[in-house]
Amino acid sequence: MASVDVVFSPAEPLPRADCWLVVDLLRASTTIVAFFERGGRCLLPAAAVDEARDLKRRLPGRWLLMGERNALPPEGFDLGNSPLELASVDMTAFDGAVMTTTNGTRALLAAAERGGEIRVACARNARAAAVRAAAFRSVAVFCAGLEGRPALDDTACAGLLVDRLLERGPRELGDGAQMALSLFRDCRCSLADLVSMSRHGRRLKTLGLEADLLYCCETDRSDWGARLERCGGLMRLLPER
Amino acid sequence: MASVDVVFSPAEPLPRADCWLVVDLLRASTTIVAFFERGGRCLLPAAAVDEARDLKRRLPGRWLLMGERNALPPEGFDLGNSPLELASVDMTAFDGAVMTTTNGTRALLAAAERGGEIRVACARNARAAAVRAAAFRSVAVFCAGLEGRPALDDTACAGLLVDRLLERGPRELGDGAQMALSLFRDCRCSLADLVSMSRHGRRLKTLGLEADLLYCCETDRSDWGARLERCGGLMRLLPER
Repeated sequence: MASVDVVFSPAEPLPRADCWLVVDLLRASTTIVAFFERGGRCLLPAAAVDEARDLKRRLPGRWLLMGERNALPPEGFDLGNSPLELASVDMTAFDGAVMTTTNGTRALLAAAERGGEIRVACARNARAAAVRAAAFRSVAVFCAGLEGRPALDDTACAGLLVDRLLERGPRELGDGAQMALSLFRDCRCSLADLVSMSRHGRRLKTLGLEADLLYCCETDRSDWGARLERCGGLMRLLPER
Repeated sequence: MASVDVVFSPAEPLPRADCWLVVDLLRASTTIVAFFERGGRCLLPAAAVDEARDLKRRLPGRWLLMGERNALPPEGFDLGNSPLELASVDMTAFDGAVMTTTNGTRALLAAAERGGEIRVACARNARAAAVRAAAFRSVAVFCAGLEGRPALDDTACAGLLVDRLLERGPRELGDGAQMALSLFRDCRCSLADLVSMSRHGRRLKTLGLEADLLYCCETDRSDWGARLERCGGLMRLLPER
C-alpha cells in the first residue's frame, strides 16, 4: 500500500520517500506559494544571509532579495518573509528572487540532499499539493520546525496535508503522520486558533504580524505549487500549476 | 510561570529542564516501574548488550540481566523487557538488575548528560510521577521514540503526563507539550487503542505480546517511581514511593 509519514524537524533521521512536501507554514512555504501565484518566475533558496547577498550580486538580470532572521528582513533585503507584503511588488519585472529564512529554506536544502521529488506545501495550497503528491507511492511531509525542534504550527499543517492526501486514496500512516493527523482532525478549534497557540504564532502576533498568520492559515485557496530542481550547481524552485 | 515541554526523540536538541520524565511506554519505563513495585532494589541502565553483560560479570552479589533487542531478550539474558514476566521472579533474592533496551535505557543516559533530576515515567505511574515532578519549575518529558524518530505510543503517554501535571497547577506549554496533550486529550479512543495504532504497538501484537501492551496502557495504577543518580562511575536507578 502507498504510505505517508511526517518528519517533525530537520533533527530527525529522514526516512526514504519518493516525494517530499516541505512545510514552513509561518511563513516561508506560504510566501513561496504566494510568490509564484503573483507571477514570480524562479526562486533560489539560500541557507545563509551572506550566501543570499552574494548570489544576488553574481546573477545576471534583476533579482529580488527576500527572507528573514528572527522574523524580520536582514539589512539590504528588498522584502521580508511576508506573503502579504508581496502584493506590493510587480513580480513580472524581475527574473526571480533569492530567498533565505531561518527554518524553511534550510529544510528545503536538507530534503534535497535526501533525494526524491521535492515540493513546497502550505495550508493555502494543501489540496493542490496533495493531488500532485498522490501519484507517488511514498510521501513524506517534512516540517521545518523551529530552532531544530518540532513546531505546533508546522505539525498542524502536516496533519492537514495528510488529511487531504487520504482524500485521494488509502495510505499506510507512519507514527508521525498519525500524530499530525490526530492533531489536525481532533482539535476542537480552527487551524488559525491552533497555530495561534504555537510559539512561532505567538511571536508573530507580538511583532504585529497577525494578518500574515491569518492568511497562512486559510486552507485550499491556491492551485499553485513549487518544485525544487537542480540547475547547474544551484537549487531552484519553479512554479507548478 | 512554571513550564512543561515534550521532546519526541533523542535526535532533538534537548531544552533545559530542572526535571526530566523519561518515557519508553512500550516497554522499558513500564518494566522499570514494575521492577521496583515488585521489590527490586537497584537497576543499572547500560547502553549496549556487551556492556550490560560485562557489568553483570564485574558486580559483586546476585544481579539479574534483563532487556531486549528487537523486542526479544539477547542470548544469555535472565529476562526480557516485559513487565508481566517480572511477576515470576522473586526480586528480593537479588541485589538488583542490569538492563539494556534499544530506546529506553539510551534515552535515560542521554538525559543524564543534560543534567537536572531524572525520573522514569509511564502510564501506570503517570499521576504519581506528575505529583513528584510538580515541585520543579521546568519539567520536560523525554520520549525514547523508535529508531531515533518520534513514536505515537511515547507521545501519547507524554500527553497523559502533561495532563496529570496540569492537575497540579497551571504551566506554560511548549509546542511539544501542546502537541502531545492534544494527541492524548482529543483522541476519541482509549490510550490502548491509540497505542495499538503505533508502529511499536503493532509490532508487539505481531510478536504475541498484546498482554504487555494492555498492561502498559493502564493509567495511574502505581505510586512507584524511579530516580536516576550517579554512584561512582555508574548511573543507577533507585526506587521512589
